[in-house]
Formats: sequence, structure tokens, C-alpha cells
Amino acid sequence: MTADIPTADLTADLAWLGAHAASRLREEVHLDARTPLAATITTEVSRLRALSPGTAGTLRLLDLPAAEEAQQPQDVLAALRAAGEESYAVHGDGPDLTVIAAGGASLLHAFYASLRAPAADAGREIAAGWSLYTPTQPIRMLDHWDNMLPHPVMGQVERGYAGGSLFFTDGELREDLSRVEHYARLLAAIGINRVSLNNVNVHAREATLLTERRGAVARLAEIFRAHGIRVLLSVSFASPMMLGGLPSNDPLDPAVQAWWRTTATALYAEIPDFGGFVVKADSEGQPGPFAYGRNHADGANLLARALRPHGGEVFWRAFVYDHRQDWRDRSTDRARAAHDHFAPLDGAFDENVILQVKHGPMDFQTREAVSPVLGVMPRTRLAVELQVTQEYTGQQKHVCYLGPWWHENLLFRFGGDDAATVADLVAGTAERPGGVVAVSNVGDDAFWTGHPLAQANLYALGRLAWDPQLGADEILAEWIRITFGTDALVAEVLTELLAESWALYESYTAPLGVGFMVRPGHHYGPDVDGYEYTPWGTYHFADRDGIGVDRSVATGTGFAGLFPEPWASRYESPETCPDELLLFFHHVPYTHRLHSGKTVIQHIYDSRADGYERVLELRPRWLQLAGRVPEALHARVTSLLEEQERSAQEWRDQLRSYFHRASGIADETGRRIY
Amino acid sequence: MTADIPTADLTADLAWLGAHAASRLREEVHLDARTPLAATITTEVSRLRALSPGTAGTLRLLDLPAAEEAQQPQDVLAALRAAGEESYAVHGDGPDLTVIAAGGASLLHAFYASLRAPAADAGREIAAGWSLYTPTQPIRMLDHWDNMLPHPVMGQVERGYAGGSLFFTDGELREDLSRVEHYARLLAAIGINRVSLNNVNVHAREATLLTERRGAVARLAEIFRAHGIRVLLSVSFASPMMLGGLPSNDPLDPAVQAWWRTTATALYAEIPDFGGFVVKADSEGQPGPFAYGRNHADGANLLARALRPHGGEVFWRAFVYDHRQDWRDRSTDRARAAHDHFAPLDGAFDENVILQVKHGPMDFQTREAVSPVLGVMPRTRLAVELQVTQEYTGQQKHVCYLGPWWHENLLFRFGGDDAATVADLVAGTAERPGGVVAVSNVGDDAFWTGHPLAQANLYALGRLAWDPQLGADEILAEWIRITFGTDALVAEVLTELLAESWALYESYTAPLGVGFMVRPGHHYGPDVDGYEYTPWGTYHFADRDGIGVDRSVATGTGFAGLFPEPWASRYESPETCPDELLLFFHHVPYTHRLHSGKTVIQHIYDSRADGYERVLELRPRWLQLAGRVPEALHARVTSLLEEQERSAQEWRDQLRSYFHRASGIADETGRRIY
Repeated sequence: MTADIPTADLTADLAWLGAHAASRLREEVHLDARTPLAATITTEVSRLRALSPGTAGTLRLLDLPAAEEAQQPQDVLAALRAAGEESYAVHGDGPDLTVIAAGGASLLHAFYASLRAPAADAGREIAAGWSLYTPTQPIRMLDHWDNMLPHPVMGQVERGYAGGSLFFTDGELREDLSRVEHYARLLAAIGINRVSLNNVNVHAREATLLTERRGAVARLAEIFRAHGIRVLLSVSFASPMMLGGLPSNDPLDPAVQAWWRTTATALYAEIPDFGGFVVKADSEGQPGPFAYGRNHADGANLLARALRPHGGEVFWRAFVYDHRQDWRDRSTDRARAAHDHFAPLDGAFDENVILQVKHGPMDFQTREAVSPVLGVMPRTRLAVELQVTQEYTGQQKHVCYLGPWWHENLLFRFGGDDAATVADLVAGTAERPGGVVAVSNVGDDAFWTGHPLAQANLYALGRLAWDPQLGADEILAEWIRITFGTDALVAEVLTELLAESWALYESYTAPLGVGFMVRPGHHYGPDVDGYEYTPWGTYHFADRDGIGVDRSVATGTGFAGLFPEPWASRYESPETCPDELLLFFHHVPYTHRLHSGKTVIQHIYDSRADGYERVLELRPRWLQLAGRVPEALHARVTSLLEEQERSAQEWRDQLRSYFHRASGIADETGRRIY
Repeated sequence: MTADIPTADLTADLAWLGAHAASRLREEVHLDARTPLAATITTEVSRLRALSPGTAGTLRLLDLPAAEEAQQPQDVLAALRAAGEESYAVHGDGPDLTVIAAGGASLLHAFYASLRAPAADAGREIAAGWSLYTPTQPIRMLDHWDNMLPHPVMGQVERGYAGGSLFFTDGELREDLSRVEHYARLLAAIGINRVSLNNVNVHAREATLLTERRGAVARLAEIFRAHGIRVLLSVSFASPMMLGGLPSNDPLDPAVQAWWRTTATALYAEIPDFGGFVVKADSEGQPGPFAYGRNHADGANLLARALRPHGGEVFWRAFVYDHRQDWRDRSTDRARAAHDHFAPLDGAFDENVILQVKHGPMDFQTREAVSPVLGVMPRTRLAVELQVTQEYTGQQKHVCYLGPWWHENLLFRFGGDDAATVADLVAGTAERPGGVVAVSNVGDDAFWTGHPLAQANLYALGRLAWDPQLGADEILAEWIRITFGTDALVAEVLTELLAESWALYESYTAPLGVGFMVRPGHHYGPDVDGYEYTPWGTYHFADRDGIGVDRSVATGTGFAGLFPEPWASRYESPETCPDELLLFFHHVPYTHRLHSGKTVIQHIYDSRADGYERVLELRPRWLQLAGRVPEALHARVTSLLEEQERSAQEWRDQLRSYFHRASGIADETGRRIY
């Protein structure tokens, strides 16, 4: 699919730096700043100018020294200094804008923000006519799960649904990196400030990016640097043995510590602003400190101390559980695993370690509880990990705009209405900053994300990481406007397709928070029992009488008790547990009545049948946009909507049949069950 | 595992041409024959002599001209001429044997038979002291599903469980073919007379064996020829387009016909005794004549006519069904497919076409009905296809001696007690000979077959193809004796492990003929619903009330009615259907009572629990053979028995849990259900 659209068109028409963004460029742009990123802005201006002559008005971009020279208001400058180098201030005067940025990247971010007007975010008024913009999340990172060589089953990008890697081909760095540069532009335009380049499952080839292939990392770092983005690597905890020929990877072994120090020093000699390491250790077969009787703080601190002299950081993933558990053993609960491993380690991590925690305790499900780990680590820097790539949410074949789901997770408050949000907890403090990390959904596909509408997820991720208080609907409207322009019908139809697509996807897939029910391995399409008798810890326990996982304290695994009040009590009882998480927390009879008034079994029947009916409404609406969006994009979405219809029907029919066979209870609406 | 045992040991100790066979070599061997295979016998004698000095007595081997010159009895010679070139006659006189063979291969077969004494087969007395031996099955072929390049999921040999291909490596013919020569010896010793070299799913690389890589075929043919074996190729029906650049593969297109003729002529110019083609067409995605609106007779005859001038044959597989059927559609029955496709074509195939029919209507299950196709093609040459490789019968990790299962199939009589057996039907007539084809279980593993005891299956296949009346137990005893010698404890333990191992495997896997319940893709281990909602046509239809496939005429798919009486009536009713096929033919409540007196659910519970208990008895018995069989072999079997225990336990627990969840009925023995 790559061949049919030239690269120029890709950036021109198919993402948020195309003609519609260009049409918001001011007629005059004055740039007065010493940052090397000024050159990037100059290039960007000329690129956009080529697409659109620009509207009336002037954009004046200043860095702090230039603003001082120009005698801009002292209170504005003081506010900027206090807010830190990622902040910028804007003053509007009719069509003219003046921007003062506290740093290089923020100058770039301010420039891109000027193209979004009216932007969803309002800023904070700091002086007459002046608004201050500061990202609430200091860390805004994308993790690529790219491999250098294709995996026989998963392809080149693990859980990737948008073609091969943008970075690598045939086991080496690509020669032509022009798409990487466009990608870096797109990311800068939504405020991303870190990119990890390779899969957290580090195979032999990718391991060498740390050593003999670090030249490849340096070349990518150079491209991202021009867009205010630092690069990181996923590294194997076993690197000392794999790459260094050492007899051990023991974090307390001085030779191991020396190897990591030497390796880090060599890396920083070539890439002075290298961001650091992402590590999946003792997880799903990856090596880790457990092999040496050490804990995860020992493991993380080993790497942290090698990086610390150079300003690097370790992103240590909390996704640790027993992936070889015995399905017969109902006392083991994968949902508890990360909490039970990491809660005791709060305070034990070095200050340049960030614990990277998946938003839910299972694995990026369409619906699950919030990970309690995020609430119990006050002395640990945290990042919440989201999944932009749609592993369990339709694999970029189904329309599924995840903004609302991320929003819900980021604004969850462990301690009830007045407590801090997850976003607050991960943002941390100036001394212990954290943020948002997300698995990218981008590959070498012509549309970047396979499904063109999945671009909305990448966009929303960047915008929510900047400010989680932004509404998912506002972000969607912003993405539509900046990507597709102001055609009212386009906006209407895209909003209709996307705004509630996550809830729609949920409605025809696994019910009421129980999760999974996907085909093992590739995770696409339904297979109710696919993981039921496996070692993966992802069960629904359906039998002829009922379904769900008892995670109560009273009779189950106790997971509900890992939450503070009011959640512990609310989740503990099926009577107070929210419907959408009922089967995540409780095993109930099919005849259990939901707060909605329906029984569980009738909900399963209705939701899947209704969901499919709603899916059938999407394509006719989309077809109304023929001629109003680029033709190739229209064709791609049309064919994917056909696949979504087929797949949603399969979900409907398999689940309805499975639960009818199990329960023997008729669908009271009389709709056909096969 | 290949490296730990030198090749010399492999043939010396680990198969039926080792020291134990050599110990039966006569002290003197006189050979008087003009066949090129005489040189093979001479080599074989010196090889065996190196292992054992030979017993007393003389072995005299004569071909027909030599026997005439030596004035052997005219009635013996006449009987041999009448019986055809695959026959031989034996005269015993104390320790001395005289053999007269009607052809080259039969001289070799007679020589190997002389090592087996006392052999399971008695021969037919044709003159005083003279017995005649003739294979009842003219065609005795092994199909290799070897690829030239490894498949990312299946490895190099499709459904192979014994390492890589003996023939190919890294996409080309192996340079060192010494193991192929040993393999050819093993096959000759059990009377195999044809080998097809490559996978019936023909990929791009293997397709070229037909054209640019036919030199590889010629080299293999040379090796097999010296052992009385002709080689064949699996070919793609799409070869004219794939290899010839033609615009079509239409069997009625003169250009297509010409391409096949030219291709065959070139092949025979290099390999004058080339056997012909094996074809999987319009099956599981392979190309075929349906694309051109032609039927399978058109397709088969296209190839047959290209081969006919050269004496080649087409083995056309009847394994044709809709592998994209809708699971919702209960009227489609994969079991009917081959019958419905091929029965109307009886008489339409050219005389050098053999229809190759899997023994059962589904796919090599541990238990299924006999394929009715074998009973309705009186005007078609037939071969019954068996599967030595243990795809659905434990994948050479479980001990599973298939002799009894093949025996049962080969001796099945469509028309009741006095009718012809399947073996009779496929053997055919002198004018329309057929036979037995089997998928090989051999790879480059040190023990040839992965599990050393799986060698018994290869041995039994050859012996049953020679004479299906041979008892499975007799063949097993013969294999044990010739392979392991006369140690009574070895014979006792091996018999105990193997003789009823097929029934044992059945006892803990899918119940009562319902089949499958395996993990999709690799087909190993249990997954009750693994194929239930898929397009593959392999369902059990279990719900909370019952299980099984209704294939009756009265209320089901009508498959039972494809059999003649008495089977049609016997299969039609659950009251008369044999227990072991009950769920193949009927959907019954869990409370249905079997002829055994147990309910279906209690049978499911008991059989799996009892089966596992019996599996646990195997390893202690095997450990008694330490020091009595080669050490590496003992270690391999020990570790595989551990895996069999683990896997049998998994089968037990998954199936018992699944059906308890479904039925809600307690196990009346009170054994634990998880």
C-alpha cells in the first residue's frame, strides 16, 4: 500500500501538518531565537508556505533572551522562568500573535500550537493579554516496538498494524530516513519529547543497537533532536552476557556494573542527549534480576547508575507477572502481580528511574480497572503506559478512538472525588517528574497508522500527555479540523464515526470488563475460550451458571482490596461495582441483574447484537464523504469498514452462541442465535 | 540432537538394519542375479557382516534367469511369473534358504525378509517346501511433506516432528546425502516402493523441483533407485503460470497441456523411472481446476496425459473440502465433502490416475469413521492415505503405536462381513492396481522419528502395506525383535508401552470419535473450543446439555447414509452406533448411556482420569530398561515420557473442567475437577 501515495502527499494531505494546518500559518513569521530548533521552524514555515500562502497577521517567536532584549513584560518573563523550559507564553492582538518560549522545544511547540487555533487548551492567564502554556506531564514518550528483522508471526513491529518499521529494514537502519523526519515533525507538533526506538522484547539483533550498531541510534537521534525529541533504547537486562561476553548479568557484580558504565559512556560520546533505557525484565521470558536473587530495584538502579553521570534515565516496566501460571490454580491473580512485585519497592529506586506502569493491571484491555500500582508509589517516579497501537482494540482494522478511554484512566482518582488524579500522580513534582508513555501505532504504511482514522489516536495521545484535562471530544474536533479542514459534513461524519467508537467496540467484544476472549497469538477476533486453559492468567471462568473473576476480598483474590476507599468498598460488592467492571471483579450468575436493569446474559445478547447494528451504520455515512476527502484515504477506510462489519458480526455471533450454549437461556428479543 | 550420535551408530543400533538384524545374516550368501540391485545386496551383506559374523547356513539368491539355468522347479518359476515381478519364492532346508525373485526389487525384499525370521508373514505354498511371497498392495508409497525452506510456524517439514528434512537444507538439496541412503535401506527393508519427496502444499521454491531444480530430484532418484524405490514429486496445479509464465492453468487449454507434456519429457530425460506427481488441488488454498470451471477428473487427466508416454502416474488427493465454511451453517458437513466431490467422477479418471483418499472423512483423527469414498469408486484406481507422522496422535512426543488403528481401517468391510476389505478395494486388480500411501514421520533427527518408539509406526506401515492381514501385534513383536534383539524384558516392556498405546492416547484425548479439540495451528495439546467457531468444519457442538455431530440421515447431515448396509443402519441410530464413534455420528445428551453402561459424561470423566493414571505407569516400566537399550535412546524416551505425562494431565484436566463447567454434572467417582 506504500507505493500508491507519494511521500510529499503523505505529509501534505494525510496528517496534521498538511494543507489544513498550513492555511492557519500567519502571513508573516518573525523568529528571534538562538536555539538550534530555530532552523527547524524556518524549514517548517517554508514547507507550510508551499502548501498555503498563509492568512493575514503576524507571528512573532522569541526566546527568553530575545524577549528581554525586546523588553517584553517582566512578569511574563518571570512566570516563564518559573514554569520551566517546556513552557511558553502567548499574547494575541487581533490576527497577530507574540510568543515567548522558555526553551528550544517549547518554541517549536508554540509554533505548532499557533497552527491549531482555536486550540482546545486555553492556557493560564499570567498578565494582561498573556497566557502561559506548560505541559502537565514532563515526560511524553512514545515506545516503538519495532524490530530490525521481521518476526515470523508478528511481522516486523510487535503488535504493529501499520506495516513495517519506519526506522529499520532488513536488519539494519533504513538508508532513506525521510519518513522518519516527517514522523518527528508530526510528533513535535503534538508535543512528544521522547521516543524509544525498539521493541521491549529485545532480540539478538536489536540488542546490538546498544553497542556495535549505536551509529544507527546516533543517526536517528540527530533527526529527532531537530524536533525537540530525545531518543531512548530498549535494552536487554542480559546485555552484559549477550554483548559483553561476561559470565553474569548480576546487578551486584562489579564487572557487570562496569560493563554498563563503559557501554553508557560510549553511547553518550556519540549521542550527548541520549534519553536512556527502557527495560522489560523478568517479564514474559525476558531476562531480569530475579535470576540472581535480586529485586527490581537492584536491577533498575544498576542501569540508572550507569546513565546518571550523563543525564540519562531508566524506564523500568512494571509489567511483571507469572506468564506460566497454572490455570487450575484460582488463587493466583495476574491483576495483583505488578502491585505485589513493586509496592514493597517504593522508595528503593534511584532518582533517575521511572517506573513505567500499564494503565490497567492486566494488559491494555478495552476495559479494565486502573492499576493500583499507580496509587501506592509516592516515593517513586512514575509513568503511566498507554497503548496507541490497537492490540486489543481492533488492530487498526476497527475504528476505535481511544481518547475517552485514556481520559477516563488519566482522570481516575484513587482517593475519591477530591484526591489526586492518575495524571497528577504520574506528573509528579519538579524534583521527581514523571509522565505518560505510550506504545506507538505508526509504521511504514502510507497512512502512517494503517487505518487512516487511527491517526486520531496518535494525535490524542500527544495532546492528552500535554494536558490530560483536555476533553477527548475537543481533541477529536481539533484533529478533524487540522487534518481535514472545515467541511461541515466531513466533521459531522468523522465525529459520528469516531467519538463513541471505543464504547461501540466494547459493546460487541468481551462483556462487562471480563477482557480478552481473543484469538491466542495474534489477538484479533473472538475466541471465548482462547486463553481460558492457558498459562497466561487471563480467564473468564464461564460455566453453565455464570461468568466472571472473583477479585473481591471476601471470597476472591483480594485484588479489590488493593484500592483505597471509596473504590475498595465499591468494587468489593457486585451491588456497588460499576456495571462495566462487574465481571472484572465478580463471578455472577447469568441472571444477575445489572444497574442497567438487564440481566448479565441479556446484556451479553443485546449489546453484541445492537453493537453490530450500529457498526452497519458506519459505512453508509462514510460513503457520503466520497470526493470530500482524499480518494485513496476514502477507499482505504471503506475497505476497513467492511472488515469491521465482518469482524463485528463474528464477535456477535460467537459470543451469543457461546453464552447461549452455556446458559441455555433464550434471548428475550428473539434475535437469532446460531 | 543430531550431533550426539554418529551416523554409523544410527544405522547400527537404532533401526531395523542394525546389529540385531545382522545377527540373522546367513554365514554364506550366494547371489546369482543380473539386476543392478544385486550390487545393493552385496553392499548390504558386507555392511551387516561388519556388525555380526552371521549365523550358520547359506542364503542363495537367484533371479528368474539364474533359477532357470539352475533348473529350479518349473512350477515355482511359473507361479512366480504369474505373481508378477514384485514376488519371490523361498525354499527352506534347515539353516539354508533358497530364494528366487521375479524382479530386482523383490530380490532385495527377499534378502531383507531373510533377516526377519521368524517373519510374521507365512507366504503361500506353491510347491513342496516352496512358499510364494507377493505384496498385496502394489503401491506402497511414502509422502514426505518436506519443504526446502523452513516454514515460520511449522518448521521445515509440515507436520513433521523429527527435525528438518533429510533431503533439503537452506533451500537446496543437501550435499551430504548419506542419511538418505540409509533411509532408503530402511524403506527397502520394509518393502516401500515409492517415495514422494516434497510437501503437497507446494511453495515457490519447491515448485522448481519440477523444472530448474530437477537435478536435485535426479540425484535423490539415483539413491532410491538402488533400493528399488521410485521417486515422485508433489507439484502445484498452478505450475504452468508459476513456472512457465503462461496466462492460465486451465486443463483444457492446449498451451497448458503442451507445457505439462514438455515438462514431463524433460524430467524423464533425466529420470527415466520417475514415478509421477502427487497433487493437492483445490484444497486448503492450493490451486486447482475449479478456478477454470473444470472438475477434478479434468485436472488429474491433464497431468496423467503428460506422464503417460513415460510410464508415470498421478496421485490425485481426494482431500477436498471447504476450509472457509461458516460455522453457523450446520448443514455443511466436511465429512461429506470428498464423497460429494469425487463419487460422481468414478470412471472419469485416466488409467494412470490414482485417487489418493485419506482413510477417514475428516483428517487423520485418532478415531473417525472410514471414508465412504473408498467404497464408491469401483472404476477408479485408489490408494488409501495413512498418516505415519503423528499430527493428531501425539506428535511423536506421546507413545502411540498406530498399527492397530491402520489395521482396523484396512480391514473395514463396507458391505459387511463377507464383503471386500478396504485393503482389497485399494489393492485393485492387475489392470487397475492401487495401494497404500502414508505421510512419513522421518526427519533429520538422530533417531529418525524424534520419538525412538515412533520408528515402530514407520515399520508397521511398510509391513501392513505389504500385507494388511498381518496382525498389528505380530508386526510390533517383529519390530522389537529385529530392532532391539531378544532380551525378554526389553520385549515385555516395549510391548507393554506400545501395543495398546493408541487406545491409551484416545482414552485421554477427544472422546467417543468427536475428534480435534486440539490447539489451532500446531495441533498439539488440548483446546476444546479451539476449532469450534472457525471455518475449518471441525466442530463438536458441545453445549450445556450435550455434545456431538448429528450425521444421521433422519435429522443430521446424512453422512451416515453414504455407507452401504449394514453400516448405514448401524451408524444411523445412537442405539446401534459403536460407542467409539457415537459423537462422530450423533449429538446426544451428557446423560446418554453408552453400551459400556456408563453415561457419556461419566465416560468423559473416567476415561481421561484413568488414561492419565495409565500413562503414569509407563515411565517406571521404561526405567527398568536402563542399560538394556542404547543409553541415548533410553534418555530420549525417558524425557519424552515426562512430556507425555504433562500433556496427558493437561488433556485430562482441561476436558474434565470444560465438560463439568458445561454439564454441571458431578464426577460420580469424586475425583477432583479443577
